[in-house]
Amino acid sequence: MPKVRLALAQTNPLVGDIEANLDGAFAAVRAAEKSGAELVLFGEMALSGYPIEDLAARESFLISAEQALEDFAKRLESEGLGHIAVVIGHPALAKKQVARSWAIAQNCASVIRGGKVIGKYAKHHLPNYSVFDEYRNFVPGQDLFTFELQGLNFSTLICEDIWQNGGPVAQLKSSNTDIVLVLNGSPFEVDKDDKRLSLVQELAKSNQVAVAYVNLVGGQDDLVFDGDSILVDSSGKLVGRSKQFVEDLKLYDIASKQEIYAVAESAMTKPNDLEQIWGALVLGLRDYVEKNNFPSVILGLSGGIDSAVCASLATDAIGAKRVFGVAMPSKYSSEHSIADAADSAARIGLSFSTQSIESFVTAFETELQLSGLALENLQARMRAVILMGLSNSAGHLVLTTGNKSELAVGYSTIYGDSVGGFAPIKDIEKTLVWKLAKWRNEFATLNGQTPPIPENSISKPPSAELRPDQLDQDSLPEYELLDGILDAYVEQNLGRAQIVALGFDAAVVNRIIDLVDRAEWKRRQGAIGPKITGTAFGRDRRLPITKNSKQSSN
Amino acid sequence: MPKVRLALAQTNPLVGDIEANLDGAFAAVRAAEKSGAELVLFGEMALSGYPIEDLAARESFLISAEQALEDFAKRLESEGLGHIAVVIGHPALAKKQVARSWAIAQNCASVIRGGKVIGKYAKHHLPNYSVFDEYRNFVPGQDLFTFELQGLNFSTLICEDIWQNGGPVAQLKSSNTDIVLVLNGSPFEVDKDDKRLSLVQELAKSNQVAVAYVNLVGGQDDLVFDGDSILVDSSGKLVGRSKQFVEDLKLYDIASKQEIYAVAESAMTKPNDLEQIWGALVLGLRDYVEKNNFPSVILGLSGGIDSAVCASLATDAIGAKRVFGVAMPSKYSSEHSIADAADSAARIGLSFSTQSIESFVTAFETELQLSGLALENLQARMRAVILMGLSNSAGHLVLTTGNKSELAVGYSTIYGDSVGGFAPIKDIEKTLVWKLAKWRNEFATLNGQTPPIPENSISKPPSAELRPDQLDQDSLPEYELLDGILDAYVEQNLGRAQIVALGFDAAVVNRIIDLVDRAEWKRRQGAIGPKITGTAFGRDRRLPITKNSKQSSN
Repeated sequence: MPKVRLALAQTNPLVGDIEANLDGAFAAVRAAEKSGAELVLFGEMALSGYPIEDLAARESFLISAEQALEDFAKRLESEGLGHIAVVIGHPALAKKQVARSWAIAQNCASVIRGGKVIGKYAKHHLPNYSVFDEYRNFVPGQDLFTFELQGLNFSTLICEDIWQNGGPVAQLKSSNTDIVLVLNGSPFEVDKDDKRLSLVQELAKSNQVAVAYVNLVGGQDDLVFDGDSILVDSSGKLVGRSKQFVEDLKLYDIASKQEIYAVAESAMTKPNDLEQIWGALVLGLRDYVEKNNFPSVILGLSGGIDSAVCASLATDAIGAKRVFGVAMPSKYSSEHSIADAADSAARIGLSFSTQSIESFVTAFETELQLSGLALENLQARMRAVILMGLSNSAGHLVLTTGNKSELAVGYSTIYGDSVGGFAPIKDIEKTLVWKLAKWRNEFATLNGQTPPIPENSISKPPSAELRPDQLDQDSLPEYELLDGILDAYVEQNLGRAQIVALGFDAAVVNRIIDLVDRAEWKRRQGAIGPKITGTAFGRDRRLPITKNSKQSSN
Repeated sequence: MPKVRLALAQTNPLVGDIEANLDGAFAAVRAAEKSGAELVLFGEMALSGYPIEDLAARESFLISAEQALEDFAKRLESEGLGHIAVVIGHPALAKKQVARSWAIAQNCASVIRGGKVIGKYAKHHLPNYSVFDEYRNFVPGQDLFTFELQGLNFSTLICEDIWQNGGPVAQLKSSNTDIVLVLNGSPFEVDKDDKRLSLVQELAKSNQVAVAYVNLVGGQDDLVFDGDSILVDSSGKLVGRSKQFVEDLKLYDIASKQEIYAVAESAMTKPNDLEQIWGALVLGLRDYVEKNNFPSVILGLSGGIDSAVCASLATDAIGAKRVFGVAMPSKYSSEHSIADAADSAARIGLSFSTQSIESFVTAFETELQLSGLALENLQARMRAVILMGLSNSAGHLVLTTGNKSELAVGYSTIYGDSVGGFAPIKDIEKTLVWKLAKWRNEFATLNGQTPPIPENSISKPPSAELRPDQLDQDSLPEYELLDGILDAYVEQNLGRAQIVALGFDAAVVNRIIDLVDRAEWKRRQGAIGPKITGTAFGRDRRLPITKNSKQSSN
């Protein structure tokens, strides 16, 4: 009976770093071969990293990627790995133009064996929604590519191809495919893992094929690829899954499409949503730091929950030694804020310092005669100047600690607390920040560690402390209510009347929608941060700054 | 012989402001009717403004737009204009989903007569390159819509439809179309007017049809629609053109597709490129201010050419009374800078004030022990705090005065001189800034006015004045050379080797490319500003922040 040992190589490429990505791929093929594999499957664009965005429009980059692929094939052969079949994703120059496309590239999967590329598949369904611009960047391919290995037929598909009807999926039956190899660059979203598994199971059952689904892993700007590669046999049974949020190499023995065995056992179920979200945020932050070569991060510690959570995330991502926290009290800062900030630093063990902003505020306030909102913003901007000064001196990446609810309604000072290169919790609404903080502390307790987030930061009413006795709820509805309206307006994209019909008070709805729309210009200038929801602010939600808000949200 | 008087209604809609846009359209129909017109043609999405971006994904907005269209038809009828045929662009809910599309909207042109919509055309070719995301936002239409008026056949097409082969254009001949009505939302780009005219002439000749081409006018975020609507007869002869950069209503008598006469004469040629660019920048800035209801603008006046040009643009856009300039000298500011800033203000007549940053800089410098680049950036950030404080107090829109060459190489301080809601010259490379300044001064002289830009600001070597005797050319190559390399890398999207092959020094090319790539995160947080080139920074050029720059630019 034919038997193929298949390795699912879940790697973490860096966009554009073809050399290092292929070195990593080579090491994975070598390791797979040592474990007896005859076929190694990588993720979408594992050669180039993903998404490459408008690098797809740079002809010289496409040519160098194709050259690197040829060289990789030769290297495998010359180093004794030519007998392994390797399937890897990469960009390529499109051979011909297609009507209604302005792209010059294709998103490909090549099959390598015996020192050369023996076949190439180009992605057919090009996602052009949410964060994706693939119709902008790629020319669609048309035909399935099928190859035979020890009596079994393998066909390649790429990511969106299995989420849509029609196209090459419809050619699976006539091609007598036994096992579909799906190369993916599928970003993490809460609950998406369940969708992927049921989609793959459905694909397997309806086409009577086994499905090997490899996803990338790693953070890339605002996206986090979570890995979680899976293998499903032709009955739709889940045979095994790779780890989430780390590189992984997992082996399967394929006797036939119905008989597939994992060489080693793996966890078949996933952690709860909060643990997964935390994992995604940590990976997104870590990879932004490491892939951009920052030595360290710095953030303001206010004693509030947002900065305490960001400090904990940063520590989980890169270790406390590389995390710098600065308390920057003003005359409106309460005693407990300063104490909570210090407590947060002490629990985590990060480098902590204090720098009062009072003298700076006074200097500007007096000379410019500022008051009211201008004075509140001034305080936030003094803190920004301090953080950026320290960043410019030491090379720290500045983290900005705003949450999604604040970003939505513009409850932040532009060029103040919004400054920074990365926003770890920008896609986390306030009510979820609380849940994550509680989960992280419980997780620490369960593991016999100090809970990293001060209990007081979790339990006290949130305040920006920019004027005496200020509370967030002086300006905003309770966060439970606010997040409910934001979910309707931002996530569900409902209009005013529809939101009111859900049972929310019309005046509150109108006020929140106006705030959201008016903050568009601020969000446009905001830092990137990891997307974990269906509609993150950024390229996931593209709205005009200039508009009549009242009518466009009706 | 049949005869139709056609009005080309070139209007300036505000995105989302359906009520005001339709009031404006109604007034245009009324005026056209008074001038004897029987047919009025508006631009693409004149009902909703354009582009609506992801408002196209808000179902309630689409429904309200269609309702407004029905109401508009009834209003025309009830106010005695039902006999006029009106063709207007608007968004609509797509009636059915289409494969490989995630959109729910269509980009339509409806024909109204007798109080109702008598026909609807949906745009077929959906631009999804450059700044456009129409494949993201719209479902393509398929069939040409043709209607008859006094013995002549009119067909509608929308913008990109005539820039691509195939689709409804191919149906023109079989439909016996006499006159094509093309609704456009075509943003200004240098030299694009010539492309449009020759394209329209080619369309006319190859299909033996007359073409009425109406473009929108107005600024919308980073786009400037320049109007310049045209009418070409079936021989390809230009019969007339509407004004550029202003609303216009132009009338034509159509006896047949070969015999069309402009009711009034119009300028058939265009001003030179510099005058057009200046016009585009003025309109883009004016509409951003007015459509977002800012009372005034504020900017830092350094005595340098960039801020002097921005002050002049702002004055041309909204008048000197609404322009506030602030000189913010430091100990490194030269005497001539302060004098040139004051001269710039005096020539223009704007509100001028001076605020030294010295005491603020000293306070931070001492307490934070900053030096080198951190200290240079600190100065720029002190100026930002001042401008934002004044903006928060008085409601001014802050203008940031960086040019495209600086933005490209990151020669600016983030949260410093980059702060602001609008960047009037962000798409103008430095060498073009000089040309524009000289043109504007000559234009003033020719018209007997004071040249608005100090000669000294134009002629002196550029300096950021952040340390003693600093000049831009200490850090950067000469701007002529820099702009040449930037053109190759940014506009032409060439790789390193290709750029060196053009004759540039390899070391300089490498340095400039590294600077451009490393500044990506700063540009991502930058203000929007009017696009006038083929590749403006912003949504026109979408590149990852996290990447291996060396390899991705090879």
